[in-house]
Amino acid sequence: MKRGIFISFEGPDGSGKSTQIRLLTEYCKEKGLEAVTVREPGGTAISEKIREIILDKKNSEMSPVAEALLYAASRAQLVEQIIRPALEEGKMVLSDRFMDSSIAYQGYGRGLGDGVRIINEFAVRDLQPDLTFFLDLDPVKGKQRVLKEGEPDRLESEAMTFHRAVYEGYKKLSLIYPQRFVTVDADRPVGEIASDIREAFDRYVLERA
Amino acid sequence: MKRGIFISFEGPDGSGKSTQIRLLTEYCKEKGLEAVTVREPGGTAISEKIREIILDKKNSEMSPVAEALLYAASRAQLVEQIIRPALEEGKMVLSDRFMDSSIAYQGYGRGLGDGVRIINEFAVRDLQPDLTFFLDLDPVKGKQRVLKEGEPDRLESEAMTFHRAVYEGYKKLSLIYPQRFVTVDADRPVGEIASDIREAFDRYVLERA
Repeated sequence: MKRGIFISFEGPDGSGKSTQIRLLTEYCKEKGLEAVTVREPGGTAISEKIREIILDKKNSEMSPVAEALLYAASRAQLVEQIIRPALEEGKMVLSDRFMDSSIAYQGYGRGLGDGVRIINEFAVRDLQPDLTFFLDLDPVKGKQRVLKEGEPDRLESEAMTFHRAVYEGYKKLSLIYPQRFVTVDADRPVGEIASDIREAFDRYVLERA
Repeated sequence: MKRGIFISFEGPDGSGKSTQIRLLTEYCKEKGLEAVTVREPGGTAISEKIREIILDKKNSEMSPVAEALLYAASRAQLVEQIIRPALEEGKMVLSDRFMDSSIAYQGYGRGLGDGVRIINEFAVRDLQPDLTFFLDLDPVKGKQRVLKEGEPDRLESEAMTFHRAVYEGYKKLSLIYPQRFVTVDADRPVGEIASDIREAFDRYVLERA
């Protein structure tokens, strides 16, 4: 059996990742493709417990290094327990954030550098997304959207300079991994964004066949 | 001010680490040296939450890679919040387990190899113990002692082949880091072991002065 396709969605908070994942899942279903969706951090019982520690506002004394390692731990468990088995069964996997989020948020945002990539390569053991949709939105606009939705969590509450560095990190990643990164202008109506994503998806499936 | 001395205690479960830490702490107090003692995994509010996830028997599906990253995360927080500040204030720090435990248990025991050292170097950011007391005890004997003390946790319950591989890992580490590793025969009365540890400690302090 052919290994399933692994797609990650990346971008600032408020860029519409979960909406686009839902729409692509529906599109796949119409085509008869089974898609498993996961979110990060979380997605397994153990990863959800790790997620609670990461996002709890009470843990304000968390060191950036510990934070990066917790994200990697949560990801390792998700890969081993859900993503890799699903791909091996030929299923598609759509992930709301993956390794690039750590590199953007902890590596670039927190200034931890290349060590973040290294610990994540240990965590995922050679698993890379086949396609990464980067929902490109100015972080100021993303932040405004998040604030409208209610109380932000510990990471969403970070200063704007942090979110700006994260955004620049994503831009660099799109240059480092041009073969899998698809940058989509996310400052447009939902339907237009979804249409671009479907088109890139169809093209990838066609080329792969 | 002179940086404090950092000492780790390593060895199989049941080798008497906590007893020896208590005795060395008392010895230091008699000499007017303030010693901070920490235990791994744990030692900070965040690290204790991580410890709960690691040791909870319900988490039997935990992947070895996730486990290694959780230990490293717990350690990173402990280093940043407790160990490094104490050393910078000139205090001694005695740690019940440190990075060598991860290399022995996850690297050698679980067969994860050198990646465990790499993620831990990211976690501790150049901090190494000045002295490491390896309480050398056959793991079968250590296991018998633990079983007498009550219900073992998730890691203590592992098969004997695992504990044997961990022990061999420690032996290799003592050859890789001969300058800081002090191997102490732990299959002897508590007082004799303590006496050897005090002697090595005094020698180190004298050489350092």
